[in-house]
Amino acid sequence: MRTVIQIARAAARKILLVALLGTCCADLARAQADPLPSWNDGPAKKAITDFVARVTRSGGADFVPIAERIATFDNDGTLWSEQPIYFQFQFALDRVKALAPKHPEWKTRQPFKAVLEGDLKALAASGEKGLAELVMATHTGMTTEEFARTVAEWLSEARHPRFKRPYTDLVFQPMLELLAYLRANGFKTFIVSGGTVEFMRVWAERVYGIPPEQVVGTTFLTQFEMGKDGKPALMREPKIEFIDDGPGKPVGINKFIGRRPVLAFGNSDGDHQMLQWTAAGGGARLMGLVHHTDAEREWAYDRESHIGRLDKALDEATARHWVVVDMKQNWKVIYPFQK
Amino acid sequence: MRTVIQIARAAARKILLVALLGTCCADLARAQADPLPSWNDGPAKKAITDFVARVTRSGGADFVPIAERIATFDNDGTLWSEQPIYFQFQFALDRVKALAPKHPEWKTRQPFKAVLEGDLKALAASGEKGLAELVMATHTGMTTEEFARTVAEWLSEARHPRFKRPYTDLVFQPMLELLAYLRANGFKTFIVSGGTVEFMRVWAERVYGIPPEQVVGTTFLTQFEMGKDGKPALMREPKIEFIDDGPGKPVGINKFIGRRPVLAFGNSDGDHQMLQWTAAGGGARLMGLVHHTDAEREWAYDRESHIGRLDKALDEATARHWVVVDMKQNWKVIYPFQK
Repeated sequence: MRTVIQIARAAARKILLVALLGTCCADLARAQADPLPSWNDGPAKKAITDFVARVTRSGGADFVPIAERIATFDNDGTLWSEQPIYFQFQFALDRVKALAPKHPEWKTRQPFKAVLEGDLKALAASGEKGLAELVMATHTGMTTEEFARTVAEWLSEARHPRFKRPYTDLVFQPMLELLAYLRANGFKTFIVSGGTVEFMRVWAERVYGIPPEQVVGTTFLTQFEMGKDGKPALMREPKIEFIDDGPGKPVGINKFIGRRPVLAFGNSDGDHQMLQWTAAGGGARLMGLVHHTDAEREWAYDRESHIGRLDKALDEATARHWVVVDMKQNWKVIYPFQK
Repeated sequence: MRTVIQIARAAARKILLVALLGTCCADLARAQADPLPSWNDGPAKKAITDFVARVTRSGGADFVPIAERIATFDNDGTLWSEQPIYFQFQFALDRVKALAPKHPEWKTRQPFKAVLEGDLKALAASGEKGLAELVMATHTGMTTEEFARTVAEWLSEARHPRFKRPYTDLVFQPMLELLAYLRANGFKTFIVSGGTVEFMRVWAERVYGIPPEQVVGTTFLTQFEMGKDGKPALMREPKIEFIDDGPGKPVGINKFIGRRPVLAFGNSDGDHQMLQWTAAGGGARLMGLVHHTDAEREWAYDRESHIGRLDKALDEATARHWVVVDMKQNWKVIYPFQK
């Protein structure tokens, strides 16, 4: 008799355990396996897991309440690749080509002529002013919904010149794991990018699990208009409203999030002030840089690069012992399709 | 023997049930009691609970996935009172008095002189320009952290002239219940207010359960500065960057949230475009207005009021059968301290 009751009790306990694991503690169970399987063991991985352990240890000196676990990530070069040119700039170039039939004047007008003829030298000569003109012509003058549709269409068709894959395949598998690991530990993950908000929001949720309301970036002026049909629309105007880069990143964090991050990751000098702002908060902090050191599997560049230049931030990271991820040494795989 | 096993199985099932209820389904259990106890039964309450039932019914025609359950609320007059003057404006007036010893020139300079002498006529005569000057002098020229401290201090000391209570006591109990009810049903609740973001963020989490990153509002220009001590700061500049009112509300929603709300609540014509923008989305939608009809327990005002004027939005709400909450008829209590 006793034995049967004991068996029944054990069964009950087992069911209870399964029920608990299946609901509240699935994250915990996962966390007990290696949460960062694409990261080689070493100082970078250890710094990250030690930090998460410290800030989540209830009653510990470095404990951070869940509401304050804000983690911010640069996008280009930090969460996905940015070579040979920023992917959003490739979108602009492709859009110029797609829109050209409606703009016969572009055949003779720079910088459009250079884009249509593939004349990179003339394109470079058009400088920042030329670049801004391309962005305005392809990113504004339509409603927010029309723009989102255009981005989605481009993503489904465009292929990266080196990897012959959709651009959204070129996200970093180790960073996807880091995002998921942080979220499983109560962090709210944000993008804080120099790219424009509405370009990223189209795909950030599907690709990174980061919802639109957690994407901070450069914004264009937008106007509310009531259509003649009684349907309101938001029109994208050819005017940049806010540049979320360099010193703009802490400003953007303050404006959109309103809390100082406890963890921030970037890869270039454009992220320097975001890391400084994060570091200057009280209590435990983690500042990280992705250092592109892998010419074979991805690209290798830093101090002399025109894209994603990493110079002053690398010096400060070294001096202050921030986490510097050596892509070649620290990452087992770069992209999800290489798993 | 069989009986014992059956008993044991029943015990196991009971433990399982308790475990499940204790973890995932506490919200469900609460929702089965009246989720809006301070609302009288009637069309407003029914419209809200019917809407929530429809959009959360898995497989139903109006089902809305959790990620898209965005609910936006105006603040002044919708979540808390706004009479006899906007509470944030009272903060500005009190700050002028507190800062006056450092500004002897204010004794002879309008609109400051009017504030210091309590001369409401002269204050009104200074118009919008005078008002803007008062706001700039009290809201800018300091770091974001200094400003937040000032707001927190003011809230702890200031008392509302009619109710002799802290301003944060004058939030609407029925709206607190609505916020909690929506969150229990998977909604993400946002403030979208003409008030300034950093004034509200200081207390919105404690009072409404709305975290800083879910507060949208008017913003001042802010600049990143590196101090001589190597500590970075964000300085609040005397320039309004974005006005989150009227047509600015859908713009602010698009900029900060990036998704169209499925539910929006306001109380004045300043919320009209937010409601129109919400209504113009596909699928189930709920647009609501708080109509101040209770001169005895709160205030009664609408079409002729200088504060929270409700005229065109009321006409459209009536024509399109949006929810109009009659404060006097629909709400059992106004403030939490009256419960």
